[in-house]
Amino acid sequence: MSVNSDLQRERAAAILESEDFARWWAGGQAQLLERRSLEEHFYTDPRLQDAVHPSCLSYKERYEQTVAKSTHFLAKLRAWQKAKHPQMSLDVNTLKDFRTLLSGSLGTGIFQQSFPLRLHFSMFMTTLLGQGTEEQQAQWLSRAWHMDGVVGTYAQTELGHGTYIRGLETRADYDPERQEFVLNTPTQSAYKWWPGGLGNTANVAIVLAQLYVQGRHHGLQSFLVRIRDERTHEPLPGVDVGDIGPRLGGNGVNNGFLGLKDVRIPRNQMMMKNAQVLPDGTFVQGRPPLLLYGTMVYVRVITLRDALFCLLQAATIATRYSIVRRQSRIDEDKPEVCVLDHITQQVKILPQIARGVSYRLVADWLWGFYEQVLHQLEANPPAGNSLPELHALSCCLKAVATDEASRGVDLLRKSCGGHGFLSSANFDSIYGMATAAYTYEGEYTVLLLQTARFLVRQYVDSLKRKVLPSSVSYLRDTARLVWGKDLLRNCVRALECSALEEVRQAWQCQSIHRRSKVSEAMATNLAGRQMTAAAVAHAHAFLARQALAELKKVQATMAVTSVLQQLVELFVLDTFLGQVGSVLRWNGITGTQLRFVERRYEQLLAALRPNALAIVDGFDFHDRVLGSTLGCHDGRVYERLMEEARRNPLNQEPVNASFRSHLLPMMQGKL
Amino acid sequence: MSVNSDLQRERAAAILESEDFARWWAGGQAQLLERRSLEEHFYTDPRLQDAVHPSCLSYKERYEQTVAKSTHFLAKLRAWQKAKHPQMSLDVNTLKDFRTLLSGSLGTGIFQQSFPLRLHFSMFMTTLLGQGTEEQQAQWLSRAWHMDGVVGTYAQTELGHGTYIRGLETRADYDPERQEFVLNTPTQSAYKWWPGGLGNTANVAIVLAQLYVQGRHHGLQSFLVRIRDERTHEPLPGVDVGDIGPRLGGNGVNNGFLGLKDVRIPRNQMMMKNAQVLPDGTFVQGRPPLLLYGTMVYVRVITLRDALFCLLQAATIATRYSIVRRQSRIDEDKPEVCVLDHITQQVKILPQIARGVSYRLVADWLWGFYEQVLHQLEANPPAGNSLPELHALSCCLKAVATDEASRGVDLLRKSCGGHGFLSSANFDSIYGMATAAYTYEGEYTVLLLQTARFLVRQYVDSLKRKVLPSSVSYLRDTARLVWGKDLLRNCVRALECSALEEVRQAWQCQSIHRRSKVSEAMATNLAGRQMTAAAVAHAHAFLARQALAELKKVQATMAVTSVLQQLVELFVLDTFLGQVGSVLRWNGITGTQLRFVERRYEQLLAALRPNALAIVDGFDFHDRVLGSTLGCHDGRVYERLMEEARRNPLNQEPVNASFRSHLLPMMQGKL
Repeated sequence: MSVNSDLQRERAAAILESEDFARWWAGGQAQLLERRSLEEHFYTDPRLQDAVHPSCLSYKERYEQTVAKSTHFLAKLRAWQKAKHPQMSLDVNTLKDFRTLLSGSLGTGIFQQSFPLRLHFSMFMTTLLGQGTEEQQAQWLSRAWHMDGVVGTYAQTELGHGTYIRGLETRADYDPERQEFVLNTPTQSAYKWWPGGLGNTANVAIVLAQLYVQGRHHGLQSFLVRIRDERTHEPLPGVDVGDIGPRLGGNGVNNGFLGLKDVRIPRNQMMMKNAQVLPDGTFVQGRPPLLLYGTMVYVRVITLRDALFCLLQAATIATRYSIVRRQSRIDEDKPEVCVLDHITQQVKILPQIARGVSYRLVADWLWGFYEQVLHQLEANPPAGNSLPELHALSCCLKAVATDEASRGVDLLRKSCGGHGFLSSANFDSIYGMATAAYTYEGEYTVLLLQTARFLVRQYVDSLKRKVLPSSVSYLRDTARLVWGKDLLRNCVRALECSALEEVRQAWQCQSIHRRSKVSEAMATNLAGRQMTAAAVAHAHAFLARQALAELKKVQATMAVTSVLQQLVELFVLDTFLGQVGSVLRWNGITGTQLRFVERRYEQLLAALRPNALAIVDGFDFHDRVLGSTLGCHDGRVYERLMEEARRNPLNQEPVNASFRSHLLPMMQGKL
Repeated sequence: MSVNSDLQRERAAAILESEDFARWWAGGQAQLLERRSLEEHFYTDPRLQDAVHPSCLSYKERYEQTVAKSTHFLAKLRAWQKAKHPQMSLDVNTLKDFRTLLSGSLGTGIFQQSFPLRLHFSMFMTTLLGQGTEEQQAQWLSRAWHMDGVVGTYAQTELGHGTYIRGLETRADYDPERQEFVLNTPTQSAYKWWPGGLGNTANVAIVLAQLYVQGRHHGLQSFLVRIRDERTHEPLPGVDVGDIGPRLGGNGVNNGFLGLKDVRIPRNQMMMKNAQVLPDGTFVQGRPPLLLYGTMVYVRVITLRDALFCLLQAATIATRYSIVRRQSRIDEDKPEVCVLDHITQQVKILPQIARGVSYRLVADWLWGFYEQVLHQLEANPPAGNSLPELHALSCCLKAVATDEASRGVDLLRKSCGGHGFLSSANFDSIYGMATAAYTYEGEYTVLLLQTARFLVRQYVDSLKRKVLPSSVSYLRDTARLVWGKDLLRNCVRALECSALEEVRQAWQCQSIHRRSKVSEAMATNLAGRQMTAAAVAHAHAFLARQALAELKKVQATMAVTSVLQQLVELFVLDTFLGQVGSVLRWNGITGTQLRFVERRYEQLLAALRPNALAIVDGFDFHDRVLGSTLGCHDGRVYERLMEEARRNPLNQEPVNASFRSHLLPMMQGKL
């Protein structure tokens, strides 16, 4: 098939070699080739392709198609991994590798809305590894790894309880006589709700429940509960399980509900690494579960990557479509121009590319920081404690990045006009994944408030002249912005000054309320607007500063480095202009200075425009990963739109049955 | 069934009588009762209820379910209208009434994602009325009204052409010998694409095509083309028709594609009211189609209403859910509070209610202005010409309102946490409808640019000391903001000053580019950022000013008026704070003044909080119209979530067939 001629021309005219960019983006030539061979191996497999577009299927058909594909996918992936590493043993790293394969671009290309077996490898096995004793691991881990009669899920959230986990109602009562736990979801709001794969797929669940021994409460513990018969898959007695129904996105996940009524499990199915119940019912608290806390942080660190992945999928689709699509003349005597030649379109697309690339730089740094903190914690005695800093940072970055990324995806979708609205364009799936991350594993506002509390504490410390962690050390720098020659320096400094002032506002607002009659907790609630604003301002200042810092470490060809510089610069200016209300409020910036930023911003758009296609080509998304009629590498947009429309089952018969049953009688006046 | 106790308590404690508010909102007691009796009549009909939630159906099943419901709905509606007005004759007003019924809240309650026969009554019949000659109307109108063998649609947009209608490729060549037009879509990008009902439902289409007579081009004309056989519904020879597939929303519409190859129609099937082709091929241009232009304006005026309808649906759901849902303690010794008691939640919800109500005031005013302009145009000679002003206003209001409303719906969805993500919460459908309006009938950026061109022209006129139309007369007022005692006056004036400066920026930017080598058109393109910013600033200033002006005319009880005052005030302050970057840039506003606005903003949140539920109750949305497990009047959130999940076909059998075919073999290592 021929490539769209506009795309050909753009590619030929680009200064950037997209292959050079791709090498840097993938982390090296070897990684790039490995991913490509992996994708080739999987994406050519007819059993991993969809005869009917998932958006045309019923929810039940979609589930069945997903299960068929995911079992085949897992088997094939296992074989592939075995061929590469014949001596592989089962440990944390093997699991990590496998999870990366499942959740990275490979899985996305096959399951645009995820699949029900993912949680087995992420939360279920991770919990076994992290919270199971050696005996428990001996009993369960190998079976779980081979899915030998075990398909697991992780059940924490309840119908009535999410964020506030102390409020969970599910309970486990220890019966010392039979040495069993008795699990119950005593009310409707206690039903477990949301776990992936729980609906119709998993037969074992790790259930979080309030532990009671002889009426005494011992906090939340994890229990391994078999919920379906290993051989028949029938729900076991006392188990009420099912799927929670369609959602805005992620419709391959088989999210489920679970009610438990007097379900008994043996004592050794409480996860006992961190806390134990002895046969006689004695409760023994072990070391505080730092790693549990670590998992939450881990997920937030990873979410930054997921967010930029979604954003750049969308940006790639929009960029390619905006070159193929022609609309309106600029000059009357010339033909319609490609949409990306309209500056209003460049403003929608190029800053999103810049954002995704800058997030990538920060995400890599954050991952390094996360590993560093893990080493600190694992050392005996602990070598420093950066966990609070990491925690605060991961909270606000996850919140702001998922917010900006999902808004970016939506903007990019709208930049494709009507066609962006079609499911075959795939923006709906991408948006579903991006915006889900805004809520799951720490809701946006809840996370911002956590960071804000940290920031206010640090601010108070700064008043006491204490040394602050590096990411917040700017809170001690009370010098006002001095607008110098370095535009980027000016912008970052302005963002920092704003963040400092927003933190100060939050603290003052809390203090004022505290001085009135309300409690400290209520004072914090009443300062909610200022608190969240402070965390957002902090995140923006941090992202801009850190992206610039990481840029300096980049090693790549001249052309790649130069484009990256333009992108990060655009990101910093875009962040500055996006925060202009706060920036103007807290800094003395003149109209001339602001116009200077805007002029540079427009220069960057113009500079990046000729390389736009080469850059998104360099992300090297396989067509399957984009899953979009509008975004394919060959730019055959209209052909694919028509092909996908013709595949629609509704178009397989010239006349739909409802004509005879309803339309004709209506037209004959017989209704 | 009992009502949730938290809702009961809120309702009892409210100062506002929701029934008073409902009366005002509906436009009077009679209107309120009529709508209620209408809803009662339709919503209790079991044939208008869904056995399975549409989100669980396949795309094809969904179509069939929708056709079944919509034919029954139309028949029932016809009977109802006949009973009310036995003497009814078919004219513009009857059609308008009927359309209002179809597209208002009644239709929404039955078809959350619209239905395929709507376009028949909106665009198809409207075009017959507006563009058909008397003979054509005699031939088609009565049949169309009774759907006697005629189900119509309106086909303008093509696969490759939307905004720029001069670029449409479909052509109609007149054959004087046989006195027929020959219609063709000569390329793939010329295929008609998007018309509602076109896919499998309509058998006649009004097709927009480039008219050629003996090779000479006579612009775009409308042609009535039969596309399916009246009796068999088979596509006619030369007709390639089908459904374009699933979308982000509006999945009941049966949007279709249409290819035409040498399809012949008789000469009298060109719509000839405004232009004619005589038998010998002579082309006669009639009066310029002002009314065609009028239709575009009409749709944009109406869209403002649709946008606020969506926004308030979402706000009602979120408000009720936020009272039922309890999450986190504020004070440690008290139980978890309802989410709406968190100020961060109030900030998400209350300003959206304020926005919807303020839009309503402006929408009513805009409708009046529209009717006034129609009268102007119909007078002979025309009594003034406010059409350009109306056009400019309707463009930016449609753009800004659909943008703000869809963002508001999304924010409200996210304010409901994970449950907002479920299709049974219905935010996905509401969002789909709201965001579709951002693009259709004039895409956001395209419309802003149209308004901006008007604004720049007016600004240039103001420099020449000309009198300006009332909505832009502030462009002549170059006095700087003087911060006085009236906070609202200050805010509106600040928004006006910003808008004036943004318009001036756009003009300057255009001028600067014009002075360099580029063409005037390219200069406008390069000023795209400033142009769109100017139109947005103008829209915000207008909305704030007009909402305040309309507020003064409200006649209602004291309590209703007082709540409306708080809502409009909140809207104005929220608009001011939302535009704070532009406001601070172009006005000398001190930190103290800004803090004063913020303090008042928070006071308003606190003042509105106790009446929040009573207000949304007062919108009087029927549960069916909300279509949400989270938003029902009785607040039985968890019960409905479970009920809806249990109805899911995937939950009708304890073990899904894919267990034996795929999961079990996998667990036995046989894959």
